[in-house]
Amino acid sequence: MNTTQYSVAIIGLGAMGMGAAESCINAGLTTYGVDLNTTALNQLQSKGAKAVSQDARDFAKEIDAVLLLVVNAKQVDSILFGENGLANHLKPNTAVMISSTISAQDAQKFSQKLTEYGLLMLDAPVSGGAAKAAKGEMTVMASGEQKAFDKLQPVLNAVARKVYNIGKEIGLGSTVKIVHQLLAGVHIAAGAEAMALAAKAGIPLDLMYDVVTNAAGNSWMFENRMKHVVEGDYTPLSMVDIFVKDLGLVSDTARSLKFPLPLASTAFNMFTQASNAGYGKEDDSAVIKIFDGIQLPKKGEK
Amino acid sequence: MNTTQYSVAIIGLGAMGMGAAESCINAGLTTYGVDLNTTALNQLQSKGAKAVSQDARDFAKEIDAVLLLVVNAKQVDSILFGENGLANHLKPNTAVMISSTISAQDAQKFSQKLTEYGLLMLDAPVSGGAAKAAKGEMTVMASGEQKAFDKLQPVLNAVARKVYNIGKEIGLGSTVKIVHQLLAGVHIAAGAEAMALAAKAGIPLDLMYDVVTNAAGNSWMFENRMKHVVEGDYTPLSMVDIFVKDLGLVSDTARSLKFPLPLASTAFNMFTQASNAGYGKEDDSAVIKIFDGIQLPKKGEK
Repeated sequence: MNTTQYSVAIIGLGAMGMGAAESCINAGLTTYGVDLNTTALNQLQSKGAKAVSQDARDFAKEIDAVLLLVVNAKQVDSILFGENGLANHLKPNTAVMISSTISAQDAQKFSQKLTEYGLLMLDAPVSGGAAKAAKGEMTVMASGEQKAFDKLQPVLNAVARKVYNIGKEIGLGSTVKIVHQLLAGVHIAAGAEAMALAAKAGIPLDLMYDVVTNAAGNSWMFENRMKHVVEGDYTPLSMVDIFVKDLGLVSDTARSLKFPLPLASTAFNMFTQASNAGYGKEDDSAVIKIFDGIQLPKKGEK
Repeated sequence: MNTTQYSVAIIGLGAMGMGAAESCINAGLTTYGVDLNTTALNQLQSKGAKAVSQDARDFAKEIDAVLLLVVNAKQVDSILFGENGLANHLKPNTAVMISSTISAQDAQKFSQKLTEYGLLMLDAPVSGGAAKAAKGEMTVMASGEQKAFDKLQPVLNAVARKVYNIGKEIGLGSTVKIVHQLLAGVHIAAGAEAMALAAKAGIPLDLMYDVVTNAAGNSWMFENRMKHVVEGDYTPLSMVDIFVKDLGLVSDTARSLKFPLPLASTAFNMFTQASNAGYGKEDDSAVIKIFDGIQLPKKGEK
């Protein structure tokens, strides 16, 4: 496939979407950007997007593929199937890659509708964070028909270091992502709980961080997020409310399978408590603020 | 210091102790080994120990340092201060490095008694697992007087890749280890919970393992222990009952500080449930067996 003749629209230019869009530009794809935020649109335009807009229908006929990286299933639904929904304007066989974290049930519902419009869908959540997205090194966990994988190959090549083909059945990709988010969420909450205990016991948090990251108690999330606690910087890269949503999806999944999740349900309560206490828009490491009676590092102290 | 003239006795030749003893031999220290298990004694003898015995008093007068890597505080107490306890037979200023995971209170109690015998103590728990112990690459989180650090320098050089000097106060080392074990225990239990959910949802566990270990949901413990679940091999490297003990210490520590630990207390219950169901002597990844209604991989299936 000639990549310069391949056109993709990235919808949702948040931390992950912006990175993915840049990776598509870097890979030589003709790249369009869509977001409601005009600052994000201007940013992507200056990086070499073919065109940007608040409305994807502006270039619906030009594109071979759509990559959706919006916040949740409600936004996906509204963009594709809302009033003047995009699905009705895309060329037949356009491939729609849904990379937002959504439930398997929602993925299946979207797939059914897209099929009615003659469109292809890949159930393709991602992981890796903003930094990896910008380098085209995301991990993609995808399920769908082979022809959807084939049509999206240039996009997958551009944005991913690793693509898992989990199977044909739409919903498997979402489920793998949800199980992954169980771990990610519990690890952040556990990191916060451990650092809070260390603070209460009088252990300097920078030393505790250093020990853990050099020992078997480490996790990707501990290393990445507890650095924010040590630095006292809760500028949101990914917000507390994202894990209220994602652990909510974990909880929905478990309920639909009648399966108990002792740790994930506890972590869900911790993030919900943090959000309810007013920290929902802070970095997800702010879940540590649910613990009282401890002194946490303040920004600029070191 | 001339290392060949420096003598150390390692007491407790389990997975970690055996590795540490081998590292001492490899570093050129005159190494003695102590355990009740004669197979372990023979194994260490064949690897070049100066002498081995079920009773450390046999070479109490020859040694500059003792490294204790037994299971718990009760064993430490019995060896050092029980009937015919070792403390009464060591030369003055012999350094005793206590690397078992114990409470800060027990560490302080032992320190007080050792001081009465004119002995030095390092409160020096370790992390890294058997493989790192054997390569002399453990992480040591230690507190104590500088002269204890100095006297134990050849041992620390031999067994550790990284030594943290947390401070003078005995108990700080143990507390850091306990906070570390909170993370280690929660991460194993979370890994089990996630893999159990994946099994229930029909996701192949080898694929789930591969995704997580390539994404932000990974932890050291997930990568190390969930491999046993994927392979269906619960041969104990570290047993469920070790985490019943260690998360019990975490819980004791939190209680003494009047501090809530939502996740660690949940994980403690999960390991306790696994032990109560008969899996206490299996590998700690067997905590996954508390989840019913799922099919787990069996050994030799792949």
